[in-house]
Amino acid sequence: MRQSALFSHTTKELPKDEPSINAQLLIRAGYVDKLMAGVYTYLPLGLRVLNNVKNIIRKEMNDLGAQEILMPALTPKENWEKTGRWSGLDVLFRLKGVGDKEYALGATHEEVVTPLLQNYVKSYKDLPQAVYQIQDKFRNEARAKSGLLRGREFSMKDLYSFHADEADLDQYYEKAKDAYVRIFEACGLDAKIVEASGGTFSKYSHEFQVFTESGEDLVYSCAKCGIYRNKEIIDGEACECGQKWEVNKAIEVGNIFKLKTKYSAAFDFKYTNEEGKESDVQMGCYGIGPSRIVGAIAEIHHDESGLIWPEVVAPFKVHIMNLGPDAEAKNVAERLYKNLNKSGVEVLFDDRDLSAGVKLKDSDLIGLPIRIVVSSKTLATNAVELKRRDSDDIEMVDIEKIVAQLTK
Amino acid sequence: MRQSALFSHTTKELPKDEPSINAQLLIRAGYVDKLMAGVYTYLPLGLRVLNNVKNIIRKEMNDLGAQEILMPALTPKENWEKTGRWSGLDVLFRLKGVGDKEYALGATHEEVVTPLLQNYVKSYKDLPQAVYQIQDKFRNEARAKSGLLRGREFSMKDLYSFHADEADLDQYYEKAKDAYVRIFEACGLDAKIVEASGGTFSKYSHEFQVFTESGEDLVYSCAKCGIYRNKEIIDGEACECGQKWEVNKAIEVGNIFKLKTKYSAAFDFKYTNEEGKESDVQMGCYGIGPSRIVGAIAEIHHDESGLIWPEVVAPFKVHIMNLGPDAEAKNVAERLYKNLNKSGVEVLFDDRDLSAGVKLKDSDLIGLPIRIVVSSKTLATNAVELKRRDSDDIEMVDIEKIVAQLTK
Repeated sequence: MRQSALFSHTTKELPKDEPSINAQLLIRAGYVDKLMAGVYTYLPLGLRVLNNVKNIIRKEMNDLGAQEILMPALTPKENWEKTGRWSGLDVLFRLKGVGDKEYALGATHEEVVTPLLQNYVKSYKDLPQAVYQIQDKFRNEARAKSGLLRGREFSMKDLYSFHADEADLDQYYEKAKDAYVRIFEACGLDAKIVEASGGTFSKYSHEFQVFTESGEDLVYSCAKCGIYRNKEIIDGEACECGQKWEVNKAIEVGNIFKLKTKYSAAFDFKYTNEEGKESDVQMGCYGIGPSRIVGAIAEIHHDESGLIWPEVVAPFKVHIMNLGPDAEAKNVAERLYKNLNKSGVEVLFDDRDLSAGVKLKDSDLIGLPIRIVVSSKTLATNAVELKRRDSDDIEMVDIEKIVAQLTK
Repeated sequence: MRQSALFSHTTKELPKDEPSINAQLLIRAGYVDKLMAGVYTYLPLGLRVLNNVKNIIRKEMNDLGAQEILMPALTPKENWEKTGRWSGLDVLFRLKGVGDKEYALGATHEEVVTPLLQNYVKSYKDLPQAVYQIQDKFRNEARAKSGLLRGREFSMKDLYSFHADEADLDQYYEKAKDAYVRIFEACGLDAKIVEASGGTFSKYSHEFQVFTESGEDLVYSCAKCGIYRNKEIIDGEACECGQKWEVNKAIEVGNIFKLKTKYSAAFDFKYTNEEGKESDVQMGCYGIGPSRIVGAIAEIHHDESGLIWPEVVAPFKVHIMNLGPDAEAKNVAERLYKNLNKSGVEVLFDDRDLSAGVKLKDSDLIGLPIRIVVSSKTLATNAVELKRRDSDDIEMVDIEKIVAQLTK
């Protein structure tokens, strides 16, 4: 894409009341725009990152054998009353429509997916099943000061699994946990698996937490046992082994729950087992916020000059810029842009008529993995400059070899 | 995909209060599930169709040079007050959050996109611009009895364009109109371009209307002039040329508006022109509902046995079924399924252990473009049966030639 064609661009202006590092960086670099507290618009670059994260997650969900569906955000009050969460879930946005019909905006989707699967699962032969969606969730959060880490509207991948018995749920839960580990690794996040309470969902859960000073959660680690626990379930100074806890601030990037029969019971969702008897369906649910992942990556992968995207989530792999001053530099950069596009390399081409200083500063802020500089100076040695965003080294690459190097 | 792995399936049970043909067919064939009036879940097959439609639209938008973004559904009251639509737009869902903050759910996005572009467009050099999104919209419709044709939550592609003057807006408007014609053609819909009123958006607009008995709109046609007008702007028995109007029921599948300065003025969105003077930004907006297109296709492309998807939007191109009874038929069908998958053909494989009658009936209802039947009878002549959903002809194709025929 030509940078001159992008309507959005880097900015020095930050909205008031935006204390979070991730939102500050993403706004300054032109990835998102803040509409109001906890609610952001994805600009072209930001949407590309968000979609890359969603596709990493989608691939792992499909590999788990889960089927993608799309449930509505507008959900009926009756379903939430059945589970006690109409009044029990304080972050629920409630609203009224025609004929005083009452709705909740989906903050999570057990209340929709449970009766949905109930339509189709009648016998043990119909189990197990797993379905997921990637969709915007709405939560009426008291505070929304953490940028993309805690939004009032945010992107969520929610997977739900349905099983004949707890053993099958346990097995699937471990497989889902492994898939989550792969997702965070792919996104460049070192996520710890942390024992936690289950909130309104279940008694216990596992969270995926990334250690960072800007985190809202406190994670207790035992260096001896290698276990991690959320502060909310800690009841002492030390682990059972005697080792004193180490405490770290952390960002929660995923959360998985064994719901067991909590929601199936609320909807009287049973199946006929092999003996012909009615039995409760066992459920699990597994959430990851793609927008929160984007925020967590920004929070962790940056330096004082700007963002540093891991290649798999970067909006483009390569940032080409012509720094002139001769016309030949422009021509070579144009040709290189076209050749890389043809080879399927995703390129942002800074073809704007601006100073070298502005272009290089913008490029650092935007943070694509590889920068290629073409200038009269580099062309004097028949070369271009190649610099990785995560390194200070500059490599001179022969013009004839650069396309091959970037496509290998 | 193996049909045995799909959690969803065809059903004879229809929800109460579902008079619309499109929703009845889509529910019976297992494409959507009804959560409540005007609100549907997309099941795996339905989501594939919806995504195919979205991608057809996305390609045309990108070809128009428009940039994809993603705006929130949760929008602040202040923005709607500036345009007078907080109280003026009766379908607006309004809700309250923490601290009694008031929000509207996006029923359209002029109130978000106008101040967004205002951040970036300062001078005539920044114009023209065009941005679009594909996202769920919410409208508190008084009646929601038309299935996917009029939802309370529904998918929408909304494009907004920004221009220095009316001449440039007019030119872009015609290009967008042409793109819309191509989109509906690709989706198998014969959409007429109909003059209409602009509602709360503008004085006049153009609608894209598909004639069908189940339509909610009335379109007046002049056979002599070849013009079409929505009933709402008709003021006589005959066209200006004297020709009597022909009247048809129709479904509106798209709507485009010259907003001119209506919304830019509300936000005081001006740019500096070439003479250095402040000037109003001219705007256009262009909407298509992908979910409404899915409904319209179902409404128009079906027979008494079920759906008949145009190939570009079909969830799969080919439906393979093994009707046995010998094991060889099963083996050949399995091999064919694997070979077609390898060749990149999208296949639904009915590998379920059900009678030929049930499988063929399901296949007609689901409505994929091509059905391949493998049975001991077809194998006796070393062949498979190929039938197109939109024809009664059955072709016998040599087993060795079928993959080549389906991939050519």
